[in-house]
Amino acid sequence: MGFKSVLHILGTAILTLGLSATGALAQSDPLSSWNEGKTKQAIVDFVTAVTTDGSADYVVPADRIATFDNDGTLWSEQPMYVQLAFALDRVKKTAPDHPEWKDTEPYKSVLAGDLKGLAATGEKGVLELVAVTHAGMTSDEFTKIASDWIATAKHPETGRLYTDMVYQPMLELIDYLHDNDFKVFIVSGGGIEFMRPWTEKVYGIPSERVVGSSIKTEYKVVDGEPVITRQAALNFLDDKEGKPIGILGHIGKRPIAAFGNSDGDFQMLQWTTSGDGKRFGLIVHHDDADREVAYDRKSVFGKLDKGLDDGPKLGWTIVSMKNDWKQIYPDD
Amino acid sequence: MGFKSVLHILGTAILTLGLSATGALAQSDPLSSWNEGKTKQAIVDFVTAVTTDGSADYVVPADRIATFDNDGTLWSEQPMYVQLAFALDRVKKTAPDHPEWKDTEPYKSVLAGDLKGLAATGEKGVLELVAVTHAGMTSDEFTKIASDWIATAKHPETGRLYTDMVYQPMLELIDYLHDNDFKVFIVSGGGIEFMRPWTEKVYGIPSERVVGSSIKTEYKVVDGEPVITRQAALNFLDDKEGKPIGILGHIGKRPIAAFGNSDGDFQMLQWTTSGDGKRFGLIVHHDDADREVAYDRKSVFGKLDKGLDDGPKLGWTIVSMKNDWKQIYPDD
Repeated sequence: MGFKSVLHILGTAILTLGLSATGALAQSDPLSSWNEGKTKQAIVDFVTAVTTDGSADYVVPADRIATFDNDGTLWSEQPMYVQLAFALDRVKKTAPDHPEWKDTEPYKSVLAGDLKGLAATGEKGVLELVAVTHAGMTSDEFTKIASDWIATAKHPETGRLYTDMVYQPMLELIDYLHDNDFKVFIVSGGGIEFMRPWTEKVYGIPSERVVGSSIKTEYKVVDGEPVITRQAALNFLDDKEGKPIGILGHIGKRPIAAFGNSDGDFQMLQWTTSGDGKRFGLIVHHDDADREVAYDRKSVFGKLDKGLDDGPKLGWTIVSMKNDWKQIYPDD
Repeated sequence: MGFKSVLHILGTAILTLGLSATGALAQSDPLSSWNEGKTKQAIVDFVTAVTTDGSADYVVPADRIATFDNDGTLWSEQPMYVQLAFALDRVKKTAPDHPEWKDTEPYKSVLAGDLKGLAATGEKGVLELVAVTHAGMTSDEFTKIASDWIATAKHPETGRLYTDMVYQPMLELIDYLHDNDFKVFIVSGGGIEFMRPWTEKVYGIPSERVVGSSIKTEYKVVDGEPVITRQAALNFLDDKEGKPIGILGHIGKRPIAAFGNSDGDFQMLQWTTSGDGKRFGLIVHHDDADREVAYDRKSVFGKLDKGLDDGPKLGWTIVSMKNDWKQIYPDD
């Protein structure tokens, strides 16, 4: 082998090493699915400020509480809440035991396949439907039903598993906060026992860090075995004013960062960002009709109106999915 | 220096090293305040079984949930619940605003200094009193009131700070479980917001791992500032059947180990120990009249009757404070 060949091989090797190093560097960006710009910078600046020892904004790890809405913030909520799709199946299966549903909203609309009629019953109607249709079994049985369903249920338009329709940039954000010793909680209007079976696997958030709406439960001993049964009555609605209440009840501390996408998250962000010291509020704005769905002020699910007007005045960061996110779903 | 002197010095040094090693060994016992015997062995055997990878009883860290009652299990509950002592102060201070209390139990007894009359209103009366007398301020204000009180309040008989009247063997047990990757929660009939300000400092258990009774709260914006106000109405009673309900609501999983001292903990231990796989239930029996207080079946606070009869049949470990504990309080 001549000297020039050796140089060539060496050169290639060095070039390859250089490329690898560049690749490794790119991969080490914890928010690699976020485009560079003021949104990403605002996130990084906040986390850096509260985690830099000696900084005026430093917050001890025990107080680094971050709360995330789920529907529309961590995963898709269009054309309907995922849990609603689950509930529709349950309504159809249990309808024979409830003849009165034929004449009672919101069941009437569901059984007629009239989603507009269902939507007209409002978010409260939807959440009550969800709660009521999840009752009549033990908590363990419901966990199995929900787990089995989520393992195979697919989005009506994309044909993907719902758990694959989570937002890659938000997954990175959760990991980034975890890596910076934040305690990350989900605070959702969705049912707490519907989410818990899969949040650890999908988001890395364990069941005890999931706050949500709930129905009443009862503890009793049946044939010598203790069970917790699910009752057809709403216990707690974790939405709007309910979110700060749910956070205080479960966590006992005001978050220093909160992430949402709809006016159901307004009070959570309002409470979070009005506390003392450095705070962070972020709203995901669904403005990407090409890669996802564009909706806000007039949407039935995930309506964002007040937050768009008041959020910027309150110092909240508004994420443009279209401009701020390189990628929507993990498999894109 | 002669050869014998050198030998002597070396010998002393080696002996000292040996003693130090022995001392270090003794100090490294994570349960050093527990006497050797079947109670301590049962704890160690359980923890070893569920944490030994490859063991048939192995439990992954995410499922190593342990729940502890507070009053009478982690700290003193005689001659009255600590929170009741706190509540008596609050009743006296706010009585002028509630003239009707003079003729209404349990307030009437409190204002008359009639603790027997108060006790006659039962545990529910006591807990309602606690809840009601804690209302009328914001959550932040209450946290400050509770924090200020607990920082200086002393036990009427020992003159010690209440937070110094925690049980040293139980503190070691919590640390031992933490060291073995358990998630440790307090599940108390006491008020959740009364405990949270000090559990991290005293027990090493952060606020989000405290489950307790609560009163209703309301979120509202006052003069542009969001606040959560405390209402004079019971929201949740975390006692007896309420404990499994509270655990499911907060944690979302059935514990594999539960620790209590009264019949208010019966359902928590029943639910915990009837789950699949290896489980552990432990009841602290207050049988030490010399170093603490001896009470059980007939006590107003911390009544233990059913648990003494059925606990052993259900495989629960009964701790004799007199025989199993070398030491009661940290300062003994």
